[in-house]
Amino acid sequence: MLLKVRSDFDSLSKKVNGKDLIYFDSAATTLKPNRVVEAIEDYYKNHNSNVHRSPHTLAGEATTMYEDARDAVANFINAKREEVIFTKGTTESLNSLAYSLSKDLNGEVLISTLEHHANFVPWQQLFDNVIYYDAENGVFNEEKYLKLVNKNTSLISITGQSNVTGQEINIKNLVLKIRKINKDVIIVLDGAQLIPHSKIDVKELDIDFLAFSGHKMLGPMGIGVLYGKKYILEKMKPFLYGGEMIDQVSIEKTTFNVLPYKFEAGTPNVGGAIGLAEAIKYLESLNVNEVYSHIKELTSYAIKKLSELDFLDVYGTKDTNHNSLISFNVKNVHPHDVANLLNDLYGIAIRSGHHCAQPLMKNLNVHSTCRASFYIYNTLEEIDVLIEGLKKVNKILG
Amino acid sequence: MLLKVRSDFDSLSKKVNGKDLIYFDSAATTLKPNRVVEAIEDYYKNHNSNVHRSPHTLAGEATTMYEDARDAVANFINAKREEVIFTKGTTESLNSLAYSLSKDLNGEVLISTLEHHANFVPWQQLFDNVIYYDAENGVFNEEKYLKLVNKNTSLISITGQSNVTGQEINIKNLVLKIRKINKDVIIVLDGAQLIPHSKIDVKELDIDFLAFSGHKMLGPMGIGVLYGKKYILEKMKPFLYGGEMIDQVSIEKTTFNVLPYKFEAGTPNVGGAIGLAEAIKYLESLNVNEVYSHIKELTSYAIKKLSELDFLDVYGTKDTNHNSLISFNVKNVHPHDVANLLNDLYGIAIRSGHHCAQPLMKNLNVHSTCRASFYIYNTLEEIDVLIEGLKKVNKILG
Repeated sequence: MLLKVRSDFDSLSKKVNGKDLIYFDSAATTLKPNRVVEAIEDYYKNHNSNVHRSPHTLAGEATTMYEDARDAVANFINAKREEVIFTKGTTESLNSLAYSLSKDLNGEVLISTLEHHANFVPWQQLFDNVIYYDAENGVFNEEKYLKLVNKNTSLISITGQSNVTGQEINIKNLVLKIRKINKDVIIVLDGAQLIPHSKIDVKELDIDFLAFSGHKMLGPMGIGVLYGKKYILEKMKPFLYGGEMIDQVSIEKTTFNVLPYKFEAGTPNVGGAIGLAEAIKYLESLNVNEVYSHIKELTSYAIKKLSELDFLDVYGTKDTNHNSLISFNVKNVHPHDVANLLNDLYGIAIRSGHHCAQPLMKNLNVHSTCRASFYIYNTLEEIDVLIEGLKKVNKILG
Repeated sequence: MLLKVRSDFDSLSKKVNGKDLIYFDSAATTLKPNRVVEAIEDYYKNHNSNVHRSPHTLAGEATTMYEDARDAVANFINAKREEVIFTKGTTESLNSLAYSLSKDLNGEVLISTLEHHANFVPWQQLFDNVIYYDAENGVFNEEKYLKLVNKNTSLISITGQSNVTGQEINIKNLVLKIRKINKDVIIVLDGAQLIPHSKIDVKELDIDFLAFSGHKMLGPMGIGVLYGKKYILEKMKPFLYGGEMIDQVSIEKTTFNVLPYKFEAGTPNVGGAIGLAEAIKYLESLNVNEVYSHIKELTSYAIKKLSELDFLDVYGTKDTNHNSLISFNVKNVHPHDVANLLNDLYGIAIRSGHHCAQPLMKNLNVHSTCRASFYIYNTLEEIDVLIEGLKKVNKILG
């Protein structure tokens, strides 16, 4: 059963070259439901203030709204509130972690070529002892991956779902197996692609850190989250220094605030946090399981339909772990040309490029791909239009 | 001549405990004009997309709007567009600079006790050789400060205006004198408090870096700027690693993008940048000189009126360099109690606390202060209400 949510999104009434917008670029950023935009507007027009530091009414309102937003995130991922740190997005979350830990970890850091650059470059640049799992044809193989885990592994950072192949990793299973080999490994989950359509319970998964962005899950840009287990966060060095994160500052010495504030230097993005909380409330009102089913139904349909087109190369597995997006190329046509023509003739927004995952492009032996990604507002009929569009593209350029 | 802008701010119709809101907390964050809030709404409802990476119509619109916002900032401070890096705020701007430079600079770093923690703690924590100028009674003395500059000074970071005493530093003059002693010093200006009401021309001032926040100059939270001279930025290491800031990524090696993208890892806060650009356009429509005159007139009036109250300790100089805010204490009354009572009885929002400037509190020999800060929507009549309120507070609690 597909969700009926299109009337919640004013953006869907957009016309592109005279056609109804078909938005298949949610893996880059989702559209925002009206209630999220209105929550931001309400904050700025009626409650705008800096937080925490003063007793006036607006400051009290803004502080309550900001801390309620933290509670909403904590509940959504089953964390304690002091384990939820607001950042500007997944990239900052992962960098702050890498910077904070870089001086204290001596063992091996394991990453993979499945990763988005945000979960690849920080580890590569800030650690000396990085081990790379190199996916074969872009497919994650758990058995081969686990062979790289050993007693000397100190940290593993892995995506919950590839932003290129759509492959979902069975994180719960993987964590269990990693912990059997080495129970002390710090396990970091890049949840940017997974959390928009999946329930992530940090306790159930037993991960140490989780990073994600608001803007890929119906929230605004400029807000994201770093979750961390409390006992590790307590031992960790702060990353950004400044106001709010300190306890006492003097020429002689500076001491730091308690969690989560130790990691939130400066004026936070209060409007952003409120927008993210509103997005979470909306997702919860739809029921995350229903969201998952909707995305799954669209993806299965798209995989089936696109696989029937013999002028297409479709990447990633065709099994049930492939979800929410599909990467492909029209044989002998540059992906940018495909994207351009779909946009111009059909109002279809897909992404083309390396998707910030060049190591994975190398695995797939391509320079770039087209990517169509699906979310709660998409329909089966829109996928039919994509199929029609691709046939046309092939006719004109193929 | 005072500006007439109150009708541009819906937030001013707020009632606090049945009274009209009197917002004297703009140094923490300003209210937002309706057109800024509406620009953000328009972006999310009509143009929302990730930027740079795809040829579809929405991505093109979002990219144009984001890069136009960069142009608006560049024009406002007289910089080249590639010298303007979007961050989440002043704190991130200063931290990113401190992190980037910390491995390359060996000489002395000069900071002062006038600084906000954001321009104090990063240098203190990330550099070994920090020299502190200790202000006397919170007053900046140029002559004494310059005695700390020498041939071994490699970087100076200084605020354009204290967020506690309101003292404006004559930056142009100071830079000239610093360069006479040592022309190679990297000079960093924390413009967070100065830029909301002053024209900052980075070329005229000949500063190397400038940091500021959108939310203190009518823009949204979660967006700020780091300006840097191009030739230095080109030599500098990136700070955050991830998407957008790279050129080529492989297991063997990663190379980085050109300016300004080298310093903008991850999905930027496009809505935030658009909001900031709208705030700048609004300030330009008012004329920054008129804004300065307005703030100056309010501040002079407030200093005069508050100085007449013998139950008050007023901090900072009484000369013409004291602008836009005033810190004070009611003798024998805790500043939080003052702020609470002004809020409850008069709907006045002032800030109380250490204002993220504990070293300066120590200079002033206080633990905390009350601070009233003024902006374009404030009036002389509101200051009269503050005076009346303070008399009442003194009567009840003094």
